[in-house]
Amino acid sequence: MNSILIQKVNLEGSDVDVLIQGNRISRIAPSIDFRADRIISGRNRTIIPGLVNMHTHAAMTLMRGVAEDMPLSRWLEFIWKIENDLDDDMIYWGTKLAALEMIKSGTTCFLDQYWREGYAAKACEEVGIRSNNCFVVLDKHDPANAEPIKERCMAAFESSKKWGPLQSFQVACHAPYTVSDDMFQWTSDFARKNNLLLHIHLAETISECLDSVNSYGQTPVEHLESLGVLGPEVIAAHCVWIDGDDIDILSRRKVNVVHNVNSNLKIASGYRFKYDELKQAGVNVCIGTDGAASSNNLDVKEAMKTMALLQKGWRADPKAMPIDEIMDIATVNGAKALRIDAGKVKEGALADVCLVRTDTPAFVPDFNFKSNFIYSSDSSCIDTVIVDGRIVMDERHVEGEEEIMKEAEKTAWKLCKKYL
Amino acid sequence: MNSILIQKVNLEGSDVDVLIQGNRISRIAPSIDFRADRIISGRNRTIIPGLVNMHTHAAMTLMRGVAEDMPLSRWLEFIWKIENDLDDDMIYWGTKLAALEMIKSGTTCFLDQYWREGYAAKACEEVGIRSNNCFVVLDKHDPANAEPIKERCMAAFESSKKWGPLQSFQVACHAPYTVSDDMFQWTSDFARKNNLLLHIHLAETISECLDSVNSYGQTPVEHLESLGVLGPEVIAAHCVWIDGDDIDILSRRKVNVVHNVNSNLKIASGYRFKYDELKQAGVNVCIGTDGAASSNNLDVKEAMKTMALLQKGWRADPKAMPIDEIMDIATVNGAKALRIDAGKVKEGALADVCLVRTDTPAFVPDFNFKSNFIYSSDSSCIDTVIVDGRIVMDERHVEGEEEIMKEAEKTAWKLCKKYL
Repeated sequence: MNSILIQKVNLEGSDVDVLIQGNRISRIAPSIDFRADRIISGRNRTIIPGLVNMHTHAAMTLMRGVAEDMPLSRWLEFIWKIENDLDDDMIYWGTKLAALEMIKSGTTCFLDQYWREGYAAKACEEVGIRSNNCFVVLDKHDPANAEPIKERCMAAFESSKKWGPLQSFQVACHAPYTVSDDMFQWTSDFARKNNLLLHIHLAETISECLDSVNSYGQTPVEHLESLGVLGPEVIAAHCVWIDGDDIDILSRRKVNVVHNVNSNLKIASGYRFKYDELKQAGVNVCIGTDGAASSNNLDVKEAMKTMALLQKGWRADPKAMPIDEIMDIATVNGAKALRIDAGKVKEGALADVCLVRTDTPAFVPDFNFKSNFIYSSDSSCIDTVIVDGRIVMDERHVEGEEEIMKEAEKTAWKLCKKYL
Repeated sequence: MNSILIQKVNLEGSDVDVLIQGNRISRIAPSIDFRADRIISGRNRTIIPGLVNMHTHAAMTLMRGVAEDMPLSRWLEFIWKIENDLDDDMIYWGTKLAALEMIKSGTTCFLDQYWREGYAAKACEEVGIRSNNCFVVLDKHDPANAEPIKERCMAAFESSKKWGPLQSFQVACHAPYTVSDDMFQWTSDFARKNNLLLHIHLAETISECLDSVNSYGQTPVEHLESLGVLGPEVIAAHCVWIDGDDIDILSRRKVNVVHNVNSNLKIASGYRFKYDELKQAGVNVCIGTDGAASSNNLDVKEAMKTMALLQKGWRADPKAMPIDEIMDIATVNGAKALRIDAGKVKEGALADVCLVRTDTPAFVPDFNFKSNFIYSSDSSCIDTVIVDGRIVMDERHVEGEEEIMKEAEKTAWKLCKKYL
């Protein structure tokens, strides 16, 4: 069994030794005497749980920067045109670039909703990040699409059984406005029978909500509730446009909600995310970056600051979104939604952790680590990243990063050049 | 005359050589044959103008993280108590830490409004950043304070003539609600007579505006206009709560306005900064970080992203705040307000420039440098910083940074420990 001993690292204000054996944190104590395979000095380092990115479309990193300052309708049209040309190889290199970027900014686990999930999972396995790769259901409300999608979904689930141990297969229904009621129900049944998560986009824009009310006399949340598809296995991205009744439903059904602050702001879909109301109702709120074609990077740490600032700002309340809560949102809450034993640095938990360098101006003075981490530093403070007990970034270096950047660059140009 | 030749560096999409002689950019050409004192390879580097931080209280870095998630009134009370204990040495080390942090995130020039400006200027001179250090007028509307303040201001101006060549003396009136009409007018006259800038806080919170209307029947902007103190030498921080008439006045008087997005959000003073209206009215809009006690860091690059996102978000318009405009706001607009020949990489301009490393995941693919710089990368992409023709950060290293961090840490604890 592999072992890593991190010596004299700061954990919540105290210097401790942290022993990792296999893929778990086996011991935390003031001093541990153990002949580990690898010893890491924790000098000027603080250990934190790895961040969890609960909503992205990983391979869209290949489209970073192609569509700036555009109205949403033009943006979508543009992106969809490019997506038509995606092939397996593009998904593979785009996802590798995404995984690299996430590791570099402290993300150890993420939930991906994108095409050709098998190639994405392969990329994640090779980079060493923990991933949840969804098979995406999107039938455009056309019954002719139902059978082929179901068959592909079942086949995808079968072949996912050969994936690496850190890659989990999940299912996604893109959104109520792109997926028929029947397909939603079929996918929900499939998820429940096979103990999978169901990832969806929900109530992202006001036009989505108005269209839903016009079509069904129901908000998108009410509509999905009437279909019986909401439950604790559901991870709903966005939920920007929800009212009190919607929040009651999300709470009663124990739906997990993912806020994607940078994407919501940049595409201008809405900024009044009702964090306090969701929290009061007991809803598990997580954070995501969305894809790099909309919010441009996959940096959860950066999104944590923006989320906290925006909550304080739009509510006109500096007490909104306290430091401890934003840390939990980006760690334990994500782990809870994904049903993994991570998100906390504690004995017995999965060894998904980051070492943060604190010998930089952003951490001076050292009055409040969490505040310096969230509000002062940038993601380059993430120094070492361990996923499932394996070092995937060692003092800022990820194995193979040069090749990933080179190949992703080439692939992105191949995909996008005719649109530039 | 010192010279630096930067070879094959990317400038707005083309690879060029950039020659710096003395404190100016003397030549930009596809290839320059010159025996420079120092040759820098521009490989995987893009040259940009140095960023300009148009509003901060530099030495407040010593109070970073002391007051989190507090309502504004408690926050102010707390900070003011701590400020009572500030001495010369604290200003010196706090400002050094601030200057170090700014250089590390690409800021080459800034406007400072804080106590004991002479010690701040000394710190800036030693670190090598271009600075504008204000003498701060704050009489609390008490006529007894007037004469001593005037004398100290005139004496400070005299002694500033011994400052380093990159340090400019300016004057500040804290705000209309803390400075009497007479002192405002005296300081304005003093600024105009001596060709100085007048830096103020203006219309930061709604309560400031309501109080002003109650006291004078005028908004803060109208009130200052009635005193005759608004003009092109005025640099007004915040201006969050302004109406159409205020904007007309600011435009007519050619006042420079500084948006401090992170501080406005974090202290929850207001998020609807009227950038479009100010731009339409021809007002010169700049960007600032405010002090680290409120917004926690002095990272202009980070603030650029937040400013652009928030404009798109609150206006519900993804076309709001295009990339080129946010670049200008953080560079040329600041230089213009400060009346320095910087903010553009061009022949003849002051050599205040940064080299940005682009061989990182955040810059892959390389479709759009400005979008990758503003939206994707973090400030660690700033690799080399040149101020007034002198290299102040060389491949991420600033001379003396270890000592600055050590001394600032000690000083911050001395200042704040009884409040922690």
